[in-house]
Amino acid sequence: MRLSSETAKERFTAARVARLATVDAQGVPHLVPVTFAVHDDEIVFAVDHKPKTTRNLRRLRNIAANPAVGFLADGYDEDWTRLWWVRADGFATVVTDSADRAAPVNWLCAKYRQYADRPPEGPVVRTTVTAWRGWAAS
Amino acid sequence: MRLSSETAKERFTAARVARLATVDAQGVPHLVPVTFAVHDDEIVFAVDHKPKTTRNLRRLRNIAANPAVGFLADGYDEDWTRLWWVRADGFATVVTDSADRAAPVNWLCAKYRQYADRPPEGPVVRTTVTAWRGWAAS
Repeated sequence: MRLSSETAKERFTAARVARLATVDAQGVPHLVPVTFAVHDDEIVFAVDHKPKTTRNLRRLRNIAANPAVGFLADGYDEDWTRLWWVRADGFATVVTDSADRAAPVNWLCAKYRQYADRPPEGPVVRTTVTAWRGWAAS
Repeated sequence: MRLSSETAKERFTAARVARLATVDAQGVPHLVPVTFAVHDDEIVFAVDHKPKTTRNLRRLRNIAANPAVGFLADGYDEDWTRLWWVRADGFATVVTDSADRAAPVNWLCAKYRQYADRPPEGPVVRTTVTAWRGWAAS
């Protein structure tokens, strides 16, 4: 059954991990898991710490080329009557200015105690969500 | 740490759910969870049963317009030293001919007992994987 936009947003907000899809200029998708926070109609995540390979930054290069992104959180269960997923689609911006990073980093630290001792140091991505959608098998 | 292609493929093959990213002609990504099977360097999944809304078929329309797809499986844990993910990138084809569907449907039924009594009836998507990648925190 389809979930309401409100329910989809609630389930997404409560999820601990989501998968981010970005797309390059050639239309090739790129997927990575992200920890994230939701604030109003915005999803934020951060690049944790100094990435060691340029591969880690492909999500940022893709967003610079194409701001259309998608996020998915889901629940898998061997009892398929318990499956569900929620999806957020929107447009992303990479933020590196320290003033603009401050609030999103606070939202992330409030959600994840893992960030408490070591707030993310890298760029922050802010996504304005244009649609919250979801489905549950029952 | 980066996982070898072999290890990434092994972990992906063993996963029970993956997230599929497709991209439409305008470069907008679309994400859904899928149950899947791996056979050689191919990932297959099926549209389960008569979809009730055209929205369910967006993944198929996207593949027809743009065969580049990505799949992601991951393990989340509140202990972030246990995080991992594996990604498969490739090119997808939608198969509706019953002769071409037979083998993939068998692979799916062999992996998921949930399909035993009710094999998927819809189109099958076969993806030739061009790269298996992965990462684990430790």
